[in-house]
Amino acid sequence: MTHRAHNFSAGPAAIPLPVLERAQSELLDYGGTGMSIMEQSHRGPTYDAVHNRAIADLRSLLGISDDYAVLFMQGGARGQFAMLAMNLLGDGVGAYVDTGNWSFLAEKEAAKFGRTATVWTGRDEGYCRVPAADEIAVPAGASYLHYTSNNTIYGTQFPGTPDPGDVPLICDMSSDILSRPTDVNRFGLIYAGAQKNLGPAGVVLVIVRKDLLALSHDKLPETMSYKLMAAKNSMLNTPPTFAIYLVGLVAQHLVGLGGLDAVEAINERKAELLYRTIDESGGFYSPNAAPGSRSRMNVSFRSPSAELDARFVAESAAADLVGLKGHRSAGGLRASIYNAVPEESVRALVDFMGDFARRCG
Amino acid sequence: MTHRAHNFSAGPAAIPLPVLERAQSELLDYGGTGMSIMEQSHRGPTYDAVHNRAIADLRSLLGISDDYAVLFMQGGARGQFAMLAMNLLGDGVGAYVDTGNWSFLAEKEAAKFGRTATVWTGRDEGYCRVPAADEIAVPAGASYLHYTSNNTIYGTQFPGTPDPGDVPLICDMSSDILSRPTDVNRFGLIYAGAQKNLGPAGVVLVIVRKDLLALSHDKLPETMSYKLMAAKNSMLNTPPTFAIYLVGLVAQHLVGLGGLDAVEAINERKAELLYRTIDESGGFYSPNAAPGSRSRMNVSFRSPSAELDARFVAESAAADLVGLKGHRSAGGLRASIYNAVPEESVRALVDFMGDFARRCG
Repeated sequence: MTHRAHNFSAGPAAIPLPVLERAQSELLDYGGTGMSIMEQSHRGPTYDAVHNRAIADLRSLLGISDDYAVLFMQGGARGQFAMLAMNLLGDGVGAYVDTGNWSFLAEKEAAKFGRTATVWTGRDEGYCRVPAADEIAVPAGASYLHYTSNNTIYGTQFPGTPDPGDVPLICDMSSDILSRPTDVNRFGLIYAGAQKNLGPAGVVLVIVRKDLLALSHDKLPETMSYKLMAAKNSMLNTPPTFAIYLVGLVAQHLVGLGGLDAVEAINERKAELLYRTIDESGGFYSPNAAPGSRSRMNVSFRSPSAELDARFVAESAAADLVGLKGHRSAGGLRASIYNAVPEESVRALVDFMGDFARRCG
Repeated sequence: MTHRAHNFSAGPAAIPLPVLERAQSELLDYGGTGMSIMEQSHRGPTYDAVHNRAIADLRSLLGISDDYAVLFMQGGARGQFAMLAMNLLGDGVGAYVDTGNWSFLAEKEAAKFGRTATVWTGRDEGYCRVPAADEIAVPAGASYLHYTSNNTIYGTQFPGTPDPGDVPLICDMSSDILSRPTDVNRFGLIYAGAQKNLGPAGVVLVIVRKDLLALSHDKLPETMSYKLMAAKNSMLNTPPTFAIYLVGLVAQHLVGLGGLDAVEAINERKAELLYRTIDESGGFYSPNAAPGSRSRMNVSFRSPSAELDARFVAESAAADLVGLKGHRSAGGLRASIYNAVPEESVRALVDFMGDFARRCG
């Protein structure tokens, strides 16, 4: 019996066990070819089928229409901070909603390439909430409105989708993509580093409305041009084939679970169990996120003291509950419960939390 | 018994079987952690050890001094075409040696960001050779001299290292890095996409002389700045952890073989056997590369006709010899015999070649 820990890491994070088992079983011989999928030419029919099935399954799960291109790129979500501005900013203003470290850095990076504006910030409130719809005003001359749908550090998440009017909406969906149904038609561009809900680090998914591709100008580095990457089906140069293969297996796995409605129901149960444990702890545990902004993916909370937080981390690790230390910029505790974290792991965590509170409360 | 084909793919290409077996055995539980290495935080001690050991083993194999930074980046060698120019070109001239498609595209990409000059081209000779030392004249005001040490399509390879005088020498070593001892001190920067000799697609190795890092200016996209990536030990953002882990396993494997002297001796034997079979075929097979420019990594050749080339590809594939079709821009046949292709596979290939020539000659 293979030892598997309860993995609450914020990213890279848990991968669904059936996906890892399948990858393991065919690592030396993919589909009878006598080669690993990572040893296959990206121009050959075997990899081509893997690549296109991954795209097709993502299209199916998210209901992505033919108005959008689905791209696999490299450089992580952080690479997209620059890339989206280099492709789409032009002479306009990049409007940014600042709900935490990553959205802040996204704007800072874009400012190298043109004008930006912060249309809302939660900084003075400790990033404990996301804005309500009427708190976001898109400035005149905006090229796009950018926001981060889920904030891994502070444990907040947009319950809905902002409405920027006629301006393209751009979303960093790295930490909650595929966790719930999403109406892609409301977006100009969605990007997501793979290493939370999609697969391993090393590939970033970009879903871009095709009419925006015309904005990619000819002086961009080739590998950073949405237009070129779309024209080449993400095979301008050698794509990260093994990472894309794993993303494809994750997508197949979610299709097998019943699609994103089913996935969302599981995620609701997991998050509800954790927040209930916090709320019913008699004040021993306190959540970072304000009501209405609670993330179903990253539950950030703290015990009564930094000392107890440290003890919680050490004792939970000894009980095979891994990755519960809060991000260094926020402190406290954090349980990341992405799609691949099983309900059984969340039950083990709340059992530990209850026991810990009884012993230390 | 797992079925393994003889894999002559040009890249992505064969991975050493012991590396794949090790990765397979620990895919669900790395080192007793209860998690795959791809499920571990890149900020945690487990991945950190993997990352730094990979760098240390590469330093040991190539004898890389502390004057150089060893970076893992994303975007492939094609991403480096732009990145090296964006970081290092400045107001000077990028001098390029054109020995084939990839070096040609490297210059074309750099020309988006400044001035370039082609100091030698083999285009009119069908890229059948690399220049002699006295054919390369570096122009005044050059920022660097760029060349491609091995040309996968045309099957040519520099037997030695060009001497650009005081100008930094930049080499795309994607297809022959770690295939022979290399005096890194002669270079300003070496880059290599992993998917030929280093591991899977999705990571690119960059070895850069530290004094050049000062040239990376502050308006570069963060993930494209050599200076920032060096300052953060390639962990500015989440690196492609699983690909780097595999590169580390490949490096360990080569250390275990006895280092690059031993690796070179094996590669010499493999290439010698193939070229002898071509040379002794009574003219049935003809090599693309001129004497003195023959690649030990990619042996490009052809049979008497395009029809026989096609028949060769079909019949060899049926005999489990995979990936022998020449690149679409050169036609003919090509056997890529990177480090991970076993001598036994080369023997199987020359047996097939002899039989095919007898039947069709």
